[in-house]
Amino acid sequence: MSTGKVIIYGGRGALGAAVVKHFKANNFWVATIDLAANDDADKSIVVSKDDNWSTQATAVISGLEAALGSDKVDAFINVAGGWAGGNAASKEFLKNCELMWSQSVWSSTITAQAAARFLKEGGLVSLPGAQPALGGTPGMIGYGLAKAAVHQLTKSLGQDKSGLPAGATAVAILPVTLDTPMNRKWMAGADFSTWTSLEFVAELFHKWTAGKDRPPSGSLVQLITKENKTELVVE
Amino acid sequence: MSTGKVIIYGGRGALGAAVVKHFKANNFWVATIDLAANDDADKSIVVSKDDNWSTQATAVISGLEAALGSDKVDAFINVAGGWAGGNAASKEFLKNCELMWSQSVWSSTITAQAAARFLKEGGLVSLPGAQPALGGTPGMIGYGLAKAAVHQLTKSLGQDKSGLPAGATAVAILPVTLDTPMNRKWMAGADFSTWTSLEFVAELFHKWTAGKDRPPSGSLVQLITKENKTELVVE
Repeated sequence: MSTGKVIIYGGRGALGAAVVKHFKANNFWVATIDLAANDDADKSIVVSKDDNWSTQATAVISGLEAALGSDKVDAFINVAGGWAGGNAASKEFLKNCELMWSQSVWSSTITAQAAARFLKEGGLVSLPGAQPALGGTPGMIGYGLAKAAVHQLTKSLGQDKSGLPAGATAVAILPVTLDTPMNRKWMAGADFSTWTSLEFVAELFHKWTAGKDRPPSGSLVQLITKENKTELVVE
Repeated sequence: MSTGKVIIYGGRGALGAAVVKHFKANNFWVATIDLAANDDADKSIVVSKDDNWSTQATAVISGLEAALGSDKVDAFINVAGGWAGGNAASKEFLKNCELMWSQSVWSSTITAQAAARFLKEGGLVSLPGAQPALGGTPGMIGYGLAKAAVHQLTKSLGQDKSGLPAGATAVAILPVTLDTPMNRKWMAGADFSTWTSLEFVAELFHKWTAGKDRPPSGSLVQLITKENKTELVVE
């Protein structure tokens, strides 16, 4: 018997893979949703990046129906989404806005839709925010506006009549920089002691899923790391 | 000789048409961008709702090139965007998210891109926000998240190195409810004395374009109307 069931959206990325491993190590049944399968998971639902919003949603919903039957899950944890820079004068401006939107916002609205149907009462939904998007982000405009949309979606899901099951908690995590191999590669000169470890985030999701120290529904949870210690700033 | 040149994105809608009339009455050269032409304008650039983000952008940029040549404009005023309700459990949830996104955020990012190229130094960009989207909007999730993206885009454009010309001011107006014929039709029992008149908004744009009482760049400007008087709450 597993301890519970969780769905990791973006479960093939660096953070997602760490989260999958952590829940598996704690005896959970884990399904992933991503552009590629994660063999550590009990089930992988694969969406195509060439498909549009509603086609991806259909693939996710039918994948969950097949995997879960009439079962419900304890948590939907979305850690999907990438990064792209650029201001309004950049050649790639609209292309990057579109990419950021499809990665962060499509996955988050599909998570919301899936959670409305497959999440247990009192379950957890976590969405992928970003601390810098609390203010303006002129050097990465498409990224910032997509993350801001995810933040506001979290606030909506945290209120009554959002469509989530009774007693559910919706939150977003707002990292500054995650300590991933890619970030180490691209920002090799940075101060890694201010980066948030993937294991910390995975354990946070585990605690919240188990109902421990959950922030109020609708919260934006900043992950502020200094000297390798991460504090949560809940708003 | 005209007093100046302005571009009204969404210039065929109720608010847009009022803004066009107001600027024309004040001797401005006015071009509109919308799904249909506005014969009151000096020039109408028409985009197709069936076109995607980048195709609409291309139509707008080439329309502006043809209309302006090497001229620059005093203001880009975007008042495009509609409304759709629904929570995460709604059948039409993703469809409405997509519609809200395309109406509010495509038009706003295209406005930003066009302003980076065709706006005068010290010019004005105004984007279409919404006061309710400052918090959660569980009954109209797609609407709220798209407007929140527009708000954050405004903050980005208001900062250094956003790609806008030097000295430009970027703002968003955040109405609660505008006093339009459609709103009077659909909310016939409402208290109209709390709705903001189109003429007030048009005059506000006119003042800001002329450089009068402009809020700091990056501001979200709430339009709070009580007893038929509108106050600005600038954040």
